[in-house]
Amino acid sequence: MENHVTAMYKPTDKVKEDNPSLVTKRSVKFSKKDGDHSVITINGLKEPADHPDYPAISDLNLHIASTYVRDAKIGHNFKFKHDERSLRMYDIYNKWYLEYLLYFFLFVIMALALFEDPAVPNLALPIWSTMIIESTCLAYFTFRLIHSKTCMSGIFWMGDIKNWIVSGVIVITVLDMIIYAILLSKEKPWMRLVRVLRPLFLLNFKETRELRRSFRNIRRSLPGIFSVLILLFLVIGLFALLAREIFEDDSLLKPDASDYMSQYFENFWDLYVLVTTANSPDIMMPAYDSSPWTMLFFIIYVILCIYIFMSIFLAVIYKDYRKHLKNEVQKSVFMKRRHLVRAWDTLKVWKNPIFVIPWQRWMAVMKQVEPSRSVAELKLIWKVLDKDEDNNIDKRAFMKTVDILNVTIIEKSRFVPLWEKYFPSMYNSKASQFVINLIKHRFFGFFFDLLIVANAILIGFRIEYLEWFFLTIFSVEIVLKLYALGLYCYFTNLWNVFDFVVIVSAVILSIAAKAAGSNGGIERRSLDIVLVLRVLRLVRIFNNFEKFQVIMKTLVNIGPSIVPFGGVIVVIYYVYAIIGMEIFAGKITYYGYPSEEEMATFNKSLLFCGNPKLEGSEFYRDHYCNNNFNNILKAFITLFELMIVNQWHVVTSGFVAVTSKAARIYFLCFHITMVIIIVNIFIAFILEVFMVEYSLSKSSFESEIEKKIEELGLRAQVGSTTFTDRSSLTPNMEQEGSNELSREEVDLSKFQLGKSSNSVLKILQNMFEGELDEEDLGPADVEDLEQLDVHQTDTSPYPLTLGNVV
Amino acid sequence: MENHVTAMYKPTDKVKEDNPSLVTKRSVKFSKKDGDHSVITINGLKEPADHPDYPAISDLNLHIASTYVRDAKIGHNFKFKHDERSLRMYDIYNKWYLEYLLYFFLFVIMALALFEDPAVPNLALPIWSTMIIESTCLAYFTFRLIHSKTCMSGIFWMGDIKNWIVSGVIVITVLDMIIYAILLSKEKPWMRLVRVLRPLFLLNFKETRELRRSFRNIRRSLPGIFSVLILLFLVIGLFALLAREIFEDDSLLKPDASDYMSQYFENFWDLYVLVTTANSPDIMMPAYDSSPWTMLFFIIYVILCIYIFMSIFLAVIYKDYRKHLKNEVQKSVFMKRRHLVRAWDTLKVWKNPIFVIPWQRWMAVMKQVEPSRSVAELKLIWKVLDKDEDNNIDKRAFMKTVDILNVTIIEKSRFVPLWEKYFPSMYNSKASQFVINLIKHRFFGFFFDLLIVANAILIGFRIEYLEWFFLTIFSVEIVLKLYALGLYCYFTNLWNVFDFVVIVSAVILSIAAKAAGSNGGIERRSLDIVLVLRVLRLVRIFNNFEKFQVIMKTLVNIGPSIVPFGGVIVVIYYVYAIIGMEIFAGKITYYGYPSEEEMATFNKSLLFCGNPKLEGSEFYRDHYCNNNFNNILKAFITLFELMIVNQWHVVTSGFVAVTSKAARIYFLCFHITMVIIIVNIFIAFILEVFMVEYSLSKSSFESEIEKKIEELGLRAQVGSTTFTDRSSLTPNMEQEGSNELSREEVDLSKFQLGKSSNSVLKILQNMFEGELDEEDLGPADVEDLEQLDVHQTDTSPYPLTLGNVV
Repeated sequence: MENHVTAMYKPTDKVKEDNPSLVTKRSVKFSKKDGDHSVITINGLKEPADHPDYPAISDLNLHIASTYVRDAKIGHNFKFKHDERSLRMYDIYNKWYLEYLLYFFLFVIMALALFEDPAVPNLALPIWSTMIIESTCLAYFTFRLIHSKTCMSGIFWMGDIKNWIVSGVIVITVLDMIIYAILLSKEKPWMRLVRVLRPLFLLNFKETRELRRSFRNIRRSLPGIFSVLILLFLVIGLFALLAREIFEDDSLLKPDASDYMSQYFENFWDLYVLVTTANSPDIMMPAYDSSPWTMLFFIIYVILCIYIFMSIFLAVIYKDYRKHLKNEVQKSVFMKRRHLVRAWDTLKVWKNPIFVIPWQRWMAVMKQVEPSRSVAELKLIWKVLDKDEDNNIDKRAFMKTVDILNVTIIEKSRFVPLWEKYFPSMYNSKASQFVINLIKHRFFGFFFDLLIVANAILIGFRIEYLEWFFLTIFSVEIVLKLYALGLYCYFTNLWNVFDFVVIVSAVILSIAAKAAGSNGGIERRSLDIVLVLRVLRLVRIFNNFEKFQVIMKTLVNIGPSIVPFGGVIVVIYYVYAIIGMEIFAGKITYYGYPSEEEMATFNKSLLFCGNPKLEGSEFYRDHYCNNNFNNILKAFITLFELMIVNQWHVVTSGFVAVTSKAARIYFLCFHITMVIIIVNIFIAFILEVFMVEYSLSKSSFESEIEKKIEELGLRAQVGSTTFTDRSSLTPNMEQEGSNELSREEVDLSKFQLGKSSNSVLKILQNMFEGELDEEDLGPADVEDLEQLDVHQTDTSPYPLTLGNVV
Repeated sequence: MENHVTAMYKPTDKVKEDNPSLVTKRSVKFSKKDGDHSVITINGLKEPADHPDYPAISDLNLHIASTYVRDAKIGHNFKFKHDERSLRMYDIYNKWYLEYLLYFFLFVIMALALFEDPAVPNLALPIWSTMIIESTCLAYFTFRLIHSKTCMSGIFWMGDIKNWIVSGVIVITVLDMIIYAILLSKEKPWMRLVRVLRPLFLLNFKETRELRRSFRNIRRSLPGIFSVLILLFLVIGLFALLAREIFEDDSLLKPDASDYMSQYFENFWDLYVLVTTANSPDIMMPAYDSSPWTMLFFIIYVILCIYIFMSIFLAVIYKDYRKHLKNEVQKSVFMKRRHLVRAWDTLKVWKNPIFVIPWQRWMAVMKQVEPSRSVAELKLIWKVLDKDEDNNIDKRAFMKTVDILNVTIIEKSRFVPLWEKYFPSMYNSKASQFVINLIKHRFFGFFFDLLIVANAILIGFRIEYLEWFFLTIFSVEIVLKLYALGLYCYFTNLWNVFDFVVIVSAVILSIAAKAAGSNGGIERRSLDIVLVLRVLRLVRIFNNFEKFQVIMKTLVNIGPSIVPFGGVIVVIYYVYAIIGMEIFAGKITYYGYPSEEEMATFNKSLLFCGNPKLEGSEFYRDHYCNNNFNNILKAFITLFELMIVNQWHVVTSGFVAVTSKAARIYFLCFHITMVIIIVNIFIAFILEVFMVEYSLSKSSFESEIEKKIEELGLRAQVGSTTFTDRSSLTPNMEQEGSNELSREEVDLSKFQLGKSSNSVLKILQNMFEGELDEEDLGPADVEDLEQLDVHQTDTSPYPLTLGNVV
């Protein structure tokens, strides 16, 4: 950490007077005055020369500092080199278009499975074209890797396992493509199982931090789950043995006339399926019919395995999830702080008795970090940070910079309706104001809520001739609300957006249906759906009740937190789908289910889903032929159905019938991965979101940090109309940018806080930050926070209080 | 509270010299010396006369104090009157045989359903006999109620809603019995639906506190669940509407050729069943076959309803459960403390500068509270309490009395094997000691673990000719262990008991099977099962690994905590079973499933489970006829299968077929009560047990309180061999009992702590006590703690820290 900061305050001999950037101009001016007050040590122990002004900051140091602040803001942990070239390369590396291009190519390489053999019908592409697309993706990944290498010192790059994984997968994929091409030219088959590795790209680029974090959570929960799983399998194995001993002498039969509980491994399978409840009560019925007492066996088994073991699974996962979440939160906070401390060390100047950062330096950094922000906005943020208004901030305030940057600030003028701006006299007339007050009155809302209920009832009872009336009145509602609230206010409320989309599309579709005649087919049906969607607005009514608000808020807040989780699920689905396609593609196909009369005329090769082995099977009887792995979409849907668990053993039995009993391994693995691990983690995740959400809504109905900033904002607003106390700044510091600011006489009260939909992780980070000592940068011996382990944070004494345990 | 304590220290003029009890003798001796130092006020503000000795305590006050201590110990909250007669009646009321008689009659009145029409086959009793049994039960309940009335002042008795419920149910039941008898004599039918009220007896006697507490928890969680449930039903209703609009024009058919998704209320039912996953993927297949895009509808629905809503149900319940558990814990701790404070106020004497309780008074109370404890044991407990060994304890120490009484104390002599006592020379001989050390060595255990594995494998592969060898060697193991450890040590380990039972019964059964010949029928089969049970010992091996220990410990600790929960489930099952029997009994009966050939010869009236309406139904096809409500046992099993959820809609469809669609309401209600509410509470309960267990095992692998007492015990052991410092006691206090004690010269180190299997509630109580201020008796304005509400304890500031939230 120290090695790059010692370069600070070196003589600014490479300054160019004609440098066009504001920042450099300022640094030039500083350097003129400074002479060589440059050998100030930065460890804070030696006191620097007490100079009335500040030494100039070099371009490089400014660049370093702003890069650290930016990385702290977006949460990157990139060990860039501290020379000008690397920093410039790193700036390019972080350009939004290069980043989005990466996401695009990641999406493309994943989506290729749609077009490659076995392709989704109508989407099949020739092999040369998919090969070219894949090569392009790989080329971009390689470019990205090399690019990151140029900004990093070699040791760090080499030390990052992720880079090696990406490189490895690229090499393997290229080899696989070559082999495939060669074999194809000789018309020999080749399993492209290497496609299973594609999700590794998704997981191993720096940009997919969140996804990796979710995966890490899962990986770390595995040991805990593993021991319960072993115990569960042991218990199942034991009960399978018991079942054989109890039932084999009775020569019972299942409804399909097969032997009942007579073979050990069949028993094991049946009992495992029973743990998933999928074959209950069928598996019990033959025994129950023969003797009621045998139900005791099943009752004990079910209570033990379904209720107790499955709950313990959830408990183990929930406990681990909380532990890891806590760990992740701490890690990201420490990482952010370390970045900021590095920036601080680069920027700070000595002003007796402490180090501070002056307004000019801070502003210069912010101009680089947040070029899109207006000067007024930055000034507002500075006001919040600089509490004593001496135009310097201390370390404590500087560390808050990033958090405040992440709060959405909106200019109040945006809340003023356009019509008020352009036709103020009309808009502010008495009649207009009366109408506006009427519209804003809560009875206006109640009236339309009532209409929604009425409309819903009519839709339910299919009384459609009033539809035009409702459509008109709801359109009028939208126009009125738009008039009263203005565009910005109207469309920042999600319910209004929903209303708008539904009603406008309903109007358009109604007109289209009218135009196309009464049997307009697709328009008619879409219209039906839109009509029904309007009933969803009923949910809005429930939002009026406090009880429902926490639940609704949870549902909404799950949104941003769920995205990385969805990524994990997609990755797992993808891997299983590719494997499933390689094993099962083409074995079962849906050709319709001929009735007994049609049977005779039906194409023989298409009978029984194109596979005579399915004749008489439960799979065919239940019409499950569409649940196959013939292309990636079908595979996804089949896996989705397997995830819901019910009847998964029947789906399995179908694929066992067309291959062998070994196919069970595939389905068993999917069940363990998806249902026992991932779904439980998902439940743990929802539990946690709910708990956090509830604790917050209970304490103040608002996140702690938001309240704090709002309060600061208010304070800033109260004494803010003039940006006074400029006398402390020496005249020569009043250069262009700064002068412009002071002359503009910004009204800081014109801003207000925007709504922020924080993810749970964000909320927890803010909470953790509130508890943490301000100087705490995490365990000193852990340089690379990626390696920071759970156990280290666990050693802190855990107060065993009722509040913590219950 | 004060009114009964003012009676303290009144002149002991009613003393009888010849009273045989030790306590009264002592109080007589005191009274001789005291004269009239009796007007000492008890509120602690007025200083009493500074007398070198203590005033005598009256019989009545001693009785009051010991009653309060006993109630605090067992957790009763009974507002008994403070006169001698009421106290004596209350002592009788608390006699164990009267209490167990109550449990017995509660069991009998519940179990009557087995014998009443529709009775379990072979258990049917004539109506007059069940009537007599029921009357007896009711008579005992009435007696119990009247008895409790005699110990309580009328106002408290009247103010207790529980007494009114019990009285009310008794009256209603008697009326019902009379009507039933009259109608029966006129041969008219009468539904004995009043039996549904029987569980109210179970819930409303003072003795079933734990059960009531569990019920209260559930009742309090209902409002939270209710709002989510409404939201869920709204969403289902909406999707049902959407499904009708999407699918009705396609004229799709289900596999059973019925219309697909065309009627609103059918859609609603189907989609509700889909939330339970029971009809997945069947309900999706027709739509999927017609167009893959329709799967989007189901995917959105499933993610929203199954994954998100069901998780939120669990989250809401878990949150409420924790809140209520915390509340219950606080309530019970406060109740105990208030009882103890009352006892303290009655017993305390002034010894400058504080109130204390002297050894004699404490001992007198303990003799009444714990008559079964030996004097030495009580002395040990006193040692733990009386830290400064001045033979007085202060309030702080007195408040701990009950907790220490609840710790099991075992005499060390019980750990010495019998053979050591009777044949010491033989047992302690070198050869014997060598063998014992060998047996106690861990390799001895490993060796037999290996043998168990080997035996398990052989049993799995049905290699039975080595069975005699294993049986012999395991018997030898038991004998050796018994020799080395002694009876007490051997049988206090549950694994050893299990071993012993399994091996001894295996030996007996083997001999019986040998005697009965090789095809010994029932012996042979039991032997098989016993052989397999031995495989359970494999689990013991896993207990060697630390990872499994937490899980095993949780499994074991769930035991005591689960009992009241089991009670709740039995009550709910009972109510639904009685209702189910009244509605569905006799509608469906199992008569076997004739094959197509047998069909012709089969009794027509017995075809299709005795109900032709079931012909061709899925219910019959799946052989579910035994899932009926023809007697209470069958009803319980049917409800159990409904609780597992899978195929519950098929069971429902059977009963819908033989009655009407209204039958769905019964099954829907059961599903909501049992699966959505109770099972989720059960999972929340296991989560909580696991979390508490884990926190404890992590901190010290031992409950905090146990550790503390052990430490105190050790301290007591170190300086305990003589009960010194008796000089502070005046000679006249050295009466019989006390003299006896001091002369005996008890070796206090001969005791050691027994293993306690604490329930989670107990652990949490101890934890909470550790946090609580010692003087805190709960909110002062709440006199009756039963009324103490959640919200009151919730107002305490809840520190919003990462540790609390995550």
